[in-house]
Amino acid sequence: EEVSRLLALKAKLGGDPPAATQKFTLKTPKGTRDYAPQQMTLRQGVLDKIVQVFKRHGGEAIDTPVFELKEVLMGKYGEDSKLIYDLKDQGGEILSMRYDLTVPLARYLAMNKISSIKRYHIAKVYRRDNPAMTRGRYREFYQCDFDIAGSYDPMLADAECVKIVSEVLDTLDIGDYVIKLNHRQLLDGMFEACGVPVDKFRTICSAVDKLDKSPWADVRKEMIEEKGLDDATADRIGEYVRLNGGSQLVEQLLADPKLKVVPNALQGLQGMQLLLKYCSLFGLDQRVSFDLSLARGLDYYTGVIYECVLKADPTSSSPVKLQNGSADAAVDAEQGTVGSVAGGGRYDNLVGMFDPRGKAVPCVGVSIGVERIFSVLEAKYAASGLKLRTNDVEVYVASAHKGLHEQRLRIINQLWDQGIKAEHSFKLNPKLLVQLQHCEEHQIPLAVVLGDAELSQGVVKLREVSTRQEATVPLADLATEIRKRLSSSA
Amino acid sequence: EEVSRLLALKAKLGGDPPAATQKFTLKTPKGTRDYAPQQMTLRQGVLDKIVQVFKRHGGEAIDTPVFELKEVLMGKYGEDSKLIYDLKDQGGEILSMRYDLTVPLARYLAMNKISSIKRYHIAKVYRRDNPAMTRGRYREFYQCDFDIAGSYDPMLADAECVKIVSEVLDTLDIGDYVIKLNHRQLLDGMFEACGVPVDKFRTICSAVDKLDKSPWADVRKEMIEEKGLDDATADRIGEYVRLNGGSQLVEQLLADPKLKVVPNALQGLQGMQLLLKYCSLFGLDQRVSFDLSLARGLDYYTGVIYECVLKADPTSSSPVKLQNGSADAAVDAEQGTVGSVAGGGRYDNLVGMFDPRGKAVPCVGVSIGVERIFSVLEAKYAASGLKLRTNDVEVYVASAHKGLHEQRLRIINQLWDQGIKAEHSFKLNPKLLVQLQHCEEHQIPLAVVLGDAELSQGVVKLREVSTRQEATVPLADLATEIRKRLSSSA
Repeated sequence: EEVSRLLALKAKLGGDPPAATQKFTLKTPKGTRDYAPQQMTLRQGVLDKIVQVFKRHGGEAIDTPVFELKEVLMGKYGEDSKLIYDLKDQGGEILSMRYDLTVPLARYLAMNKISSIKRYHIAKVYRRDNPAMTRGRYREFYQCDFDIAGSYDPMLADAECVKIVSEVLDTLDIGDYVIKLNHRQLLDGMFEACGVPVDKFRTICSAVDKLDKSPWADVRKEMIEEKGLDDATADRIGEYVRLNGGSQLVEQLLADPKLKVVPNALQGLQGMQLLLKYCSLFGLDQRVSFDLSLARGLDYYTGVIYECVLKADPTSSSPVKLQNGSADAAVDAEQGTVGSVAGGGRYDNLVGMFDPRGKAVPCVGVSIGVERIFSVLEAKYAASGLKLRTNDVEVYVASAHKGLHEQRLRIINQLWDQGIKAEHSFKLNPKLLVQLQHCEEHQIPLAVVLGDAELSQGVVKLREVSTRQEATVPLADLATEIRKRLSSSA
Repeated sequence: EEVSRLLALKAKLGGDPPAATQKFTLKTPKGTRDYAPQQMTLRQGVLDKIVQVFKRHGGEAIDTPVFELKEVLMGKYGEDSKLIYDLKDQGGEILSMRYDLTVPLARYLAMNKISSIKRYHIAKVYRRDNPAMTRGRYREFYQCDFDIAGSYDPMLADAECVKIVSEVLDTLDIGDYVIKLNHRQLLDGMFEACGVPVDKFRTICSAVDKLDKSPWADVRKEMIEEKGLDDATADRIGEYVRLNGGSQLVEQLLADPKLKVVPNALQGLQGMQLLLKYCSLFGLDQRVSFDLSLARGLDYYTGVIYECVLKADPTSSSPVKLQNGSADAAVDAEQGTVGSVAGGGRYDNLVGMFDPRGKAVPCVGVSIGVERIFSVLEAKYAASGLKLRTNDVEVYVASAHKGLHEQRLRIINQLWDQGIKAEHSFKLNPKLLVQLQHCEEHQIPLAVVLGDAELSQGVVKLREVSTRQEATVPLADLATEIRKRLSSSA
């Protein structure tokens, strides 16, 4: 009876038996991924470099919750609102996952009555994107945002955002890129000049936004068949959105008889002129392109808009291969680009939408889309055949024979207490060969080898893993000697 | 007519008029908070130090999505499952927000068939905690987890986790602490010895877990009135759970007639004996306390359990004051502690619950609860009256008079391109005094002052903000000179 009681107890305590384990497929939610140590090392490297650029421009970090009151997000994203993740109503507030970091920033500024800040925010955002349409885009992904809030003279902050994007792309060294620039006021003025009814500006703007993925013929069809534009109006838009260039294009459009009579178009063009001048002072002439097909999907932009795209590598036969067999690369190949890695713009009215008295705080900012950058770097790394170290262990403490685990614990403890990164086997009596193989596999530079003969004389062997050279070191000098070797090999 | 058309356009483009702004209260979701730059600076400092400790022990970073399939979380948390945030069913998979980082780790290990890893994971977790019961706890909060997975000899990995907690607390320097240790097998053996029916072990364990917040009388009442234990059984438990000490207590309990005949109790005590010995080799005798009242709420623990609590500062008249008028400090004051800052334990069956063939991967780990640490540091910092710098700007580029903004852009661009952290005014013609005041307020160490007279000679003034001393520096040497001054003052 005692036996059966213990068996029952064992069954109770020992977890469910195999038969009771889960029947569902073991996976992460659709559109999400885990980051393994190798990927985390790459990712952390990218994020560190981005933070360095943000700090170089005086950015301060903030953080906000991963979800917001649903009301905060409502009415901010136009057609994209359907992509917002909602939380279940479990009693209490109705919440949604953040869709970007811009609306939470605006809520933060309004709530705390902050009228000027240069802030950066690196965090994950959530979009229930239709997988049939996205290919290689995630539903959970990092954004790295830098925004400048405050009432300033035109285009100075806007130009600094362009500079920041170029510094990020330069420091990441992932190939040639172009930063496309346009202006929402110019787009609106252009729509007006082409004869688009005012109430269709936003929806036609969304259609133009698709030009980075779809050919003009498809976008034209959407404008006419879905959005009710007449053929002639669509064709007039078609004439403009194929244009891109630099200050010369601005001059040309300032002289355009249809545009120059529309105040919005005129103001947008004057803004572009100033922005291009400042970009030129920042040495960015070869990096920027004024592009009338750039529209950006989101409702809240009111001025300058940006988008940075990687150009296909002309020296390789195919564009940089993205993970998960992304088809974006193929689609974009005809334009010679592998897709957008940063975007942003000016949104002068968003903070005011949260202020009880509608007090506006002008803002401009950029968002670096790092997932695609990770993908490019992962592919580069995989192609290089190099193995990335995923931990920083400096020394491995090994036993030469049995019965040394207490000595090992004492010695590794001294190393930790002196700030040295050290590990050892969690076996009491591991084989020396296994321990040394572990060092070689994990590229640990040094190994301390303990043996009774040496310990009785107060010394240990210090082994350089790559050369297999060993030296005898007094225990008392061990940490100092390790540091010396590490700094000389670094 | 043109005017009214433009007015309509303006209304359309200019965002909603004030009357249409939101009517809801501007706030973050209940139980969540924003981090302002000052708080982020503190937080980043804490997280960096923790990562340093994790890396010192060979930790590799991983990351997992913020939500999981609901099925992954089901049946892992016992009574706490009701605190899980669910996402709304918007078609597709049914998802829940992660409740901790341990279950996602187990899912990750099983999914990728990984049988050994030392991993750390720093990320936010989500718990719909009842605010009436929590006071000062958040619904969104960071966990910093370090876990060791793999089949090893007993207690070596377990002891290293205790060492890691002590290193983290030492490096953060937030006061004296004690790491309480206990063993689930001993708890179960003790329940058995006291006469608790097997099917009540888990629920009685949950009751014991409340001893860190409630007096024994309340817990006893819960055991008897809610959980149906008889008075004598509860009283026998009461005798044990008041015990705490070191190896001597283990010896005493190994001789306890009721316990020594229960195999689980015996094994648990032998485990504790070994753990305490290893902790002693790690120099932790004064830091650890074998405490029979420690139970931990979660279902999945199978061996050692830990909890680290800060002791109240004996030199101050009141315990460290927590933010938001936390009542925990008061509740815990009678025990001379200000609450738990880390916890964890061994969970040998969790990974097996995810494996189709039930293959187990033994794991042990700790989780640092940094929100409370942030609160303690914020209070300390506020009390010190010091102002924390929230950006790293090294030099401010100022105009001495009007008309210099293009020169300013050119020069600041050079500094950025040479990696110097620099900012300037976004006004075309800012007043010099305002610019210099900005430097003093933001503790920017250096200012470059541009003036036509100097520029015509190819020089600028470089000003040390704290001393207001100025020197004339050739533009060509500016970056070099700035670096020299920064490194000499650092």
